[in-house]
Amino acid sequence: MSERVEEILSWYESDHPGVLKNLRWMMDTGALAGTGKFVILPVDQGFEHGPARSFAKNSPGYDPHYHFELALAAGCNAYAAPLGFLEAGARKYAGRIPLILKLNNSDSLYSSGDPKPAVTGSVNDALRLGCAAIGFTIYPGSCERNEMYMELREIAEEAKAAGLAVVVWSYPRGTALSKVGETSIDVAAYAAQIAAQLGAHIIKVKPPTADIEQDAARKVYEAEKIPVSTLAERTSHVIQAAFGGRRIVIFSGGAAKGTDAVLEEIGGLAAGGSFGSIMGRNAFQRPKAEALELLKSVQDIYRDAN
Amino acid sequence: MSERVEEILSWYESDHPGVLKNLRWMMDTGALAGTGKFVILPVDQGFEHGPARSFAKNSPGYDPHYHFELALAAGCNAYAAPLGFLEAGARKYAGRIPLILKLNNSDSLYSSGDPKPAVTGSVNDALRLGCAAIGFTIYPGSCERNEMYMELREIAEEAKAAGLAVVVWSYPRGTALSKVGETSIDVAAYAAQIAAQLGAHIIKVKPPTADIEQDAARKVYEAEKIPVSTLAERTSHVIQAAFGGRRIVIFSGGAAKGTDAVLEEIGGLAAGGSFGSIMGRNAFQRPKAEALELLKSVQDIYRDAN
Amino acid sequence: MSERVEEILSWYESDHPGVLKNLRWMMDTGALAGTGKFVILPVDQGFEHGPARSFAKNSPGYDPHYHFELALAAGCNAYAAPLGFLEAGARKYAGRIPLILKLNNSDSLYSSGDPKPAVTGSVNDALRLGCAAIGFTIYPGSCERNEMYMELREIAEEAKAAGLAVVVWSYPRGTALSKVGETSIDVAAYAAQIAAQLGAHIIKVKPPTADIEQDAARKVYEAEKIPVSTLAERTSHVIQAAFGGRRIVIFSGGAAKGTDAVLEEIGGLAAGGSFGSIMGRNAFQRPKAEALELLKSVQDIYRDAN
Amino acid sequence: MSERVEEILSWYESDHPGVLKNLRWMMDTGALAGTGKFVILPVDQGFEHGPARSFAKNSPGYDPHYHFELALAAGCNAYAAPLGFLEAGARKYAGRIPLILKLNNSDSLYSSGDPKPAVTGSVNDALRLGCAAIGFTIYPGSCERNEMYMELREIAEEAKAAGLAVVVWSYPRGTALSKVGETSIDVAAYAAQIAAQLGAHIIKVKPPTADIEQDAARKVYEAEKIPVSTLAERTSHVIQAAFGGRRIVIFSGGAAKGTDAVLEEIGGLAAGGSFGSIMGRNAFQRPKAEALELLKSVQDIYRDAN
Amino acid sequence: MSERVEEILSWYESDHPGVLKNLRWMMDTGALAGTGKFVILPVDQGFEHGPARSFAKNSPGYDPHYHFELALAAGCNAYAAPLGFLEAGARKYAGRIPLILKLNNSDSLYSSGDPKPAVTGSVNDALRLGCAAIGFTIYPGSCERNEMYMELREIAEEAKAAGLAVVVWSYPRGTALSKVGETSIDVAAYAAQIAAQLGAHIIKVKPPTADIEQDAARKVYEAEKIPVSTLAERTSHVIQAAFGGRRIVIFSGGAAKGTDAVLEEIGGLAAGGSFGSIMGRNAFQRPKAEALELLKSVQDIYRDAN
Repeated sequence: MSERVEEILSWYESDHPGVLKNLRWMMDTGALAGTGKFVILPVDQGFEHGPARSFAKNSPGYDPHYHFELALAAGCNAYAAPLGFLEAGARKYAGRIPLILKLNNSDSLYSSGDPKPAVTGSVNDALRLGCAAIGFTIYPGSCERNEMYMELREIAEEAKAAGLAVVVWSYPRGTALSKVGETSIDVAAYAAQIAAQLGAHIIKVKPPTADIEQDAARKVYEAEKIPVSTLAERTSHVIQAAFGGRRIVIFSGGAAKGTDAVLEEIGGLAAGGSFGSIMGRNAFQRPKAEALELLKSVQDIYRDAN
Repeated sequence: MSERVEEILSWYESDHPGVLKNLRWMMDTGALAGTGKFVILPVDQGFEHGPARSFAKNSPGYDPHYHFELALAAGCNAYAAPLGFLEAGARKYAGRIPLILKLNNSDSLYSSGDPKPAVTGSVNDALRLGCAAIGFTIYPGSCERNEMYMELREIAEEAKAAGLAVVVWSYPRGTALSKVGETSIDVAAYAAQIAAQLGAHIIKVKPPTADIEQDAARKVYEAEKIPVSTLAERTSHVIQAAFGGRRIVIFSGGAAKGTDAVLEEIGGLAAGGSFGSIMGRNAFQRPKAEALELLKSVQDIYRDAN
Repeated sequence: MSERVEEILSWYESDHPGVLKNLRWMMDTGALAGTGKFVILPVDQGFEHGPARSFAKNSPGYDPHYHFELALAAGCNAYAAPLGFLEAGARKYAGRIPLILKLNNSDSLYSSGDPKPAVTGSVNDALRLGCAAIGFTIYPGSCERNEMYMELREIAEEAKAAGLAVVVWSYPRGTALSKVGETSIDVAAYAAQIAAQLGAHIIKVKPPTADIEQDAARKVYEAEKIPVSTLAERTSHVIQAAFGGRRIVIFSGGAAKGTDAVLEEIGGLAAGGSFGSIMGRNAFQRPKAEALELLKSVQDIYRDAN
Repeated sequence: MSERVEEILSWYESDHPGVLKNLRWMMDTGALAGTGKFVILPVDQGFEHGPARSFAKNSPGYDPHYHFELALAAGCNAYAAPLGFLEAGARKYAGRIPLILKLNNSDSLYSSGDPKPAVTGSVNDALRLGCAAIGFTIYPGSCERNEMYMELREIAEEAKAAGLAVVVWSYPRGTALSKVGETSIDVAAYAAQIAAQLGAHIIKVKPPTADIEQDAARKVYEAEKIPVSTLAERTSHVIQAAFGGRRIVIFSGGAAKGTDAVLEEIGGLAAGGSFGSIMGRNAFQRPKAEALELLKSVQDIYRDAN
Repeated sequence: MSERVEEILSWYESDHPGVLKNLRWMMDTGALAGTGKFVILPVDQGFEHGPARSFAKNSPGYDPHYHFELALAAGCNAYAAPLGFLEAGARKYAGRIPLILKLNNSDSLYSSGDPKPAVTGSVNDALRLGCAAIGFTIYPGSCERNEMYMELREIAEEAKAAGLAVVVWSYPRGTALSKVGETSIDVAAYAAQIAAQLGAHIIKVKPPTADIEQDAARKVYEAEKIPVSTLAERTSHVIQAAFGGRRIVIFSGGAAKGTDAVLEEIGGLAAGGSFGSIMGRNAFQRPKAEALELLKSVQDIYRDAN
């Protein structure tokens, strides 16, 4: 029994034991078991970007079983994917690794300045597939944001009642934001706060830059001299924004890039107190051996940061 | 047993004992217990304005427990917040202070001339968190107003059936109103009336100015010589507009400002018969000791006005 | 037992005894009991026009109890109001006078050329408040008309199943109609027909003028020489349009005006066979004694017209 | 027992005995009992065109009982009307003639290039009124067509489960069609096909003209030399389009016109194999004796065409 | 017991035995029984293109029984059609051939650049008609795509729970795509992936061309040298995109064309590993004897490709 895991669980004080069991399952799984840190494998890019753009580079990835195997071999805390991908392996891998059913998704054959994903699965689907959690994406900054918040509200209430943890991808995007603003520190911290207020157990945001998007926020960052010049500082600020550290916040890995670049970013996140990373393309688009090596390095950084 | 509390409860004659219990709980709590007056701590600014703009000035406020502690220490009648903030402390503070779950919220990453909040929680959430009431914001003057009224209708019916009190934030706003009109006396009185007709138990409006927004109203204010030159007169008029005084009407504190300005405004409200104040940024953005001092002064004014 | 009441009830042949009981209750109540005639007090102007415009002229009217007392003292057949106003007096006056819960309302802080009210109460609310009927407004001529008809369809089905009578305010209004057309005789007769076809038990329209709005209708009025030059003729025509007289049709009193003007209009309506009037501002904006006198005069006219 | 009736019933092979009972009831009723032919009286014009335009010419028609009596006296197979008209006579005439509750309607106080009726009644209404069938209008060619199809889908499923027959008025109309196209033979045949595919038991279309609206269709009509020059040929083609004759297809009478014109049209329809007519204004806008005579002539034509 | 059928069924590991029974029923039916290959007859063109364009060329096809007979005589694995067509024959042919109820359809009397079909049937309809599966069309690339995905999500969940297989027609179409892009290889592969991720058991796409629509995809196709010059290569790529071959993918036949052209295309599809074809107009628009001959040739090609 890990003291850190107990501490983290103590923050989720309104949740019933069913939810705590699933949060604990994720924290007791894989190479980072017991540390309260997370490395999660997400594979929704086939839906989001298309199959060739996602899997052609490392073509075993077309097969849904590949990703279960990769997550298991790498000692990930959990594997997250849309309905079809989980249906295609859920029985074979039942109970071997916590699953997160991604309940909404967008494809790239149509794009809109104010995006909103389609709901593509249900809490009942997550239960019949033996999942530990559901995943849901919101796009603060889109004119459709309220629709997403309200879908999440309903799904999260149902998920919690069924004992499933709620993982929220909070990705600012939409006509109200500049491109830079999508990852600016003020917006990233705000995105984490919104997800936390909506009742997320685990919050996923993108690594923030030092930009400030909103004038009203800039005044405060300057007046209060909030330090945001290093990634560690910004990470720390985002986690503070998620209830002063009382919520698990993890960071996405972004587009595929070189190993050094990945590890440098992880270093900054870990130094700032990140609870971990969710790493898709940088994992499954590498040959398996390389991916395992990279994920091990990432886990080592997080473990050492403990 | 306070006669004033009994009198106030007698106005809610269509409500069943479950609702009366929760109204009584709020009036029997804190420094103003038994007076029929209210000072409520609301903390939804993390969602509405963002975390840094809300909590950086007094950074312990990032932690949701801080606000429970502040409301308790200050002897507030109740603490109001969105889902995430209440979930993060509801078990630890269960039963120690009445909670109001704010069921809809707007963020500032997208803004619209005709705003409408997202519904972010449910009556069931309020019940599982042990709340005394639900809170709901309407924006009369927005082209989306009817959507909000209809959401409120449904939620209020469900809340009353479950024994929860219904607190309505009635904030005129939208393309149909000028900026001045948002707080003009005719519009403020109308906003109170709408909330009352929609079945609110407790109505929260902003302190009104002496402006008149609508020509059709101006004729009546002039013809009937309705006195609106002092804040006390305007407060009295708004309360009259809420069923001739048969509904609890409280006033918001607005943006953070100096202590003298706050207390002067409270003085006017109290002189006009206000049932109390709901005071957020002026409380949690001050250092705790200062906040407690200020809230005590506010409570003293209301108590003395009795 | 009144033969006229029995005759009227016989027209509602598809309704079950629960509905007939409530129709009978209204016809057995007040100064016109047994005559099959109606004088109803409606007070939704606080919501529709705002509190000062409605109640400042006779300020006891801010208090919801005032209107129950007025309706009782005047011997009205029923009192109609929105949720909040009825909630504030329903227990005290339970069973002393039939209540009509107005289930949709519009406020004047936002206005649209194609209006649609918000649904502000439910059949369950009407039942828990001990009402005899529900009231619902439709605006034929608005591009939102179908939404209102469909809301009414659903509510009326539920109301009838629960034994509540259905009173429909049919007020032509919207971009498809000229201002004159809103009360023209062809449109008024059409509005009565629509309400009747939608299943209303009691239909409320405005006193029609001799104007004709629609060309297709004008041809018929001219070809068939339908007499519409006097108010009595027009009233008779509107009642004919409501199933050849097989539905109760009552007329609204409109804006506040002098006693002579009111009584002259009532005279015309009564001569044309009107089943009665629904009189708000002309009643509650007068001092109580004057209002009682006026309402007595109105009732006398309707009784004598029997 | 009529062989023709048995044959027709055999086509509805997926329906349960409850539906077959009601189809049989209509075919065993009136002057055409046992022939498999239909003359139905529809009276929804009060809602659709207004009361004066519908009933002033023959003013007994304002009274809903008139139409029950007319349909009975004329030996019609069924009487179809909206909710209010059926409610007003359903008990008196219960079981004496099959009733079709028209579940959606449009009024003429607002008109749109892409029309969609309001749903104005329910399957439960049809059951409590003792109806044999429900009626529903679709407007193929309107941009709102899918909404109507989806409403019909839901209502038809519910109706069939409750044993009610489903009668679909398929009237092409909308911005996608020219005025001529609304009754062109290609569009009329397509409208019949759509209603049949949506699961209608009885399909009502307008008598088609020899025009062709769509170029893609014109090619086929020319290539396959489909004969459409006479009304009989066109009628036969429309019936073929309704599952090769496996669905009952009846034709509307259109605007009021002279007796000779009516009977000539009926002659063409009957020669083409029409299952009958639905005749409103040409029936109820004539003095009753004339209407009975005309309807008898129509029935004679259909009977002789057997 | 066929090993190939067992292998295919093993891929659907999250489905319960009820679904597997119906997938097996289709694979154990007709001329290709036991091969894991499919030739399905779909007849929704009466709704989609109109009756004359669909059936005039071979007029027995107006009769719904014709298509049941054709599918049976040809040894098809299943017959797919909208509600009306299946209702008209489901009892006579109950259990003789697996039926697929097409649950959404578009007509051609109104067309839109961003199409969305109407839902025209339900899972309950499929059950009462004894179907093996439901069919549903999605149009990736339409701005209405998310609506379709969400309708499918709900219907698929209900279908799977009831033991029905889910067949998805994934047809890219809409303002976001060029005409060429509708069948380009990148888009076709993406369409297959989307259907698979949405939980389809059987995916139907159009035979793809060698075009590339999206620039982001082009980079990958070029960088990874994905071979797409022959139809066999493209077919193989599309099947790879459907979970690396773990989902049944079949191809549509498209517009009517000559026998040689049909068989050449089938040859390419079969060489690329297609699980079969769904062939409508090329079957039912030929005289029956010719259609049977063609379908036999198609089946022979697929059988030999095993």
